[in-house]
Amino acid sequence: MRLASISVAGKATYGVVEGDVVRTAGADALARHPDLKSALAAGPDRLAGLFSGEEIPLAQVQFLPVIPNPDKILCIGINYASHIAETGRPAPPKPVVFMRCANSQVGAGQPMVRPLDSEQLDYEGELAVVIGRRGRRIAAGDAFAHVAGYACYNDGSIRDFQRHSSQFGPGKNFPGTGAFGPWLVTTDEIPDPSTLTLVTRLNGNVVQQAPVSDLVFDVPALVAYCSTFTVLEPGDVIVTGTTGGVGAFREPPLWMKHGDIVEVEISGIGILRNPVIAEG
Amino acid sequence: MRLASISVAGKATYGVVEGDVVRTAGADALARHPDLKSALAAGPDRLAGLFSGEEIPLAQVQFLPVIPNPDKILCIGINYASHIAETGRPAPPKPVVFMRCANSQVGAGQPMVRPLDSEQLDYEGELAVVIGRRGRRIAAGDAFAHVAGYACYNDGSIRDFQRHSSQFGPGKNFPGTGAFGPWLVTTDEIPDPSTLTLVTRLNGNVVQQAPVSDLVFDVPALVAYCSTFTVLEPGDVIVTGTTGGVGAFREPPLWMKHGDIVEVEISGIGILRNPVIAEG
Repeated sequence: MRLASISVAGKATYGVVEGDVVRTAGADALARHPDLKSALAAGPDRLAGLFSGEEIPLAQVQFLPVIPNPDKILCIGINYASHIAETGRPAPPKPVVFMRCANSQVGAGQPMVRPLDSEQLDYEGELAVVIGRRGRRIAAGDAFAHVAGYACYNDGSIRDFQRHSSQFGPGKNFPGTGAFGPWLVTTDEIPDPSTLTLVTRLNGNVVQQAPVSDLVFDVPALVAYCSTFTVLEPGDVIVTGTTGGVGAFREPPLWMKHGDIVEVEISGIGILRNPVIAEG
Repeated sequence: MRLASISVAGKATYGVVEGDVVRTAGADALARHPDLKSALAAGPDRLAGLFSGEEIPLAQVQFLPVIPNPDKILCIGINYASHIAETGRPAPPKPVVFMRCANSQVGAGQPMVRPLDSEQLDYEGELAVVIGRRGRRIAAGDAFAHVAGYACYNDGSIRDFQRHSSQFGPGKNFPGTGAFGPWLVTTDEIPDPSTLTLVTRLNGNVVQQAPVSDLVFDVPALVAYCSTFTVLEPGDVIVTGTTGGVGAFREPPLWMKHGDIVEVEISGIGILRNPVIAEG
């Protein structure tokens, strides 16, 4: 299933995407599970039964971030060999984890925002893992049982703010910089995410491309590590890291600007496309 | 006012602490503002009118984290000269910001937890700033108008996990490591937090002591900086950083252990006292 959080005529809901329509959650389902995060907590066996609402053409739908209100968004840094090489950093012995706030996110089609404060808005195409089942100290071998599905993420970064100190957070939390969508694809359709391929395009030009199998710490390893230091909850997001080709390390640097179109495409999932606007 | 989130007979609510009782929010207030975060958003003029509920002796109350469900908790690192010196790091040119998840928090009196995964549970006594009014790009001169009040925070840290990579998050998010309480004191009683003094005691011995005026980036500077990269919302927390004396830099290191009692006291606010337990 392709599950999306959407806005229809200004009202937030969620549904399953089938072809060019979205079948929304029914009234009963919404009463029990007001948002997709809550629906995921119902478990995969009950999920399919929730979508007895109306069918709405995709063209009439505004995508929201796949999970608009996650309890936490754990982002992984420098986790592809090609990106490690371009940063000049050593390969990390443990996953590099920083956090993003929910209010920095946008959905597919919504603009990513270059803020007034910086010219250095960079793309980072990534695979996002959405947690479906609560857990602590999840063994790598059990990790997939705690995953609801996978989505595309553009972990947009304000590079000068990211470099203000040792900690990446200020560069990773500007409003309108974390694009998450258009939907998550449930794990029954993607039993092993390492078979996927990630591509980022800026104005149609491929700027990043890698197989997800190039991850240094793969999805089971990340679920295991993160669940050591925190309780993973349904709707939590692990954004698994970006690959080589980011704008910051190009010569000259390639920053996103007003009027650009940026796309993150992952095979078996779909395309997350966002226009870029300059604030103000 | 001293405003606290509390649990009474297992039910979460909030109230104003007066002497040795808590006057809880009335039924009407709870209908409009189900938690303290929401009550703060009502604004300082309306706050005082919300507490028409019952008076409960403090002895019958379990304190929860002052804000159990903040949208975000922004923690500031290496922000006192005495702590900068002991870490051996250079003084940061910009605030060092990392994040803590809400589910890592406990209230006053609740145990702080040394996890199975590490022996290196360290204390960090800090002043917490609770935001009362939404804002973006708040000028330092306007900062206090966006603050609801101040509280004590023990930014408990698992030092080996904090040092797994460049990013502090994994060491700052274990469940039961962020103690926040017992209450916030509203800004009408603390017009200038730089007049306060911070003390941390472990089993009655003073281990940290500093005037808040020693902050490298003071409260107005932190509100201004953080609101540049994120929208500050009512209930958001800025934990302003710890002073010299943490356990990690002692010789030998001083880790908290099962049976310890740790206290963070800030003049004009009160004492945040927590027992320490070993998990399992």
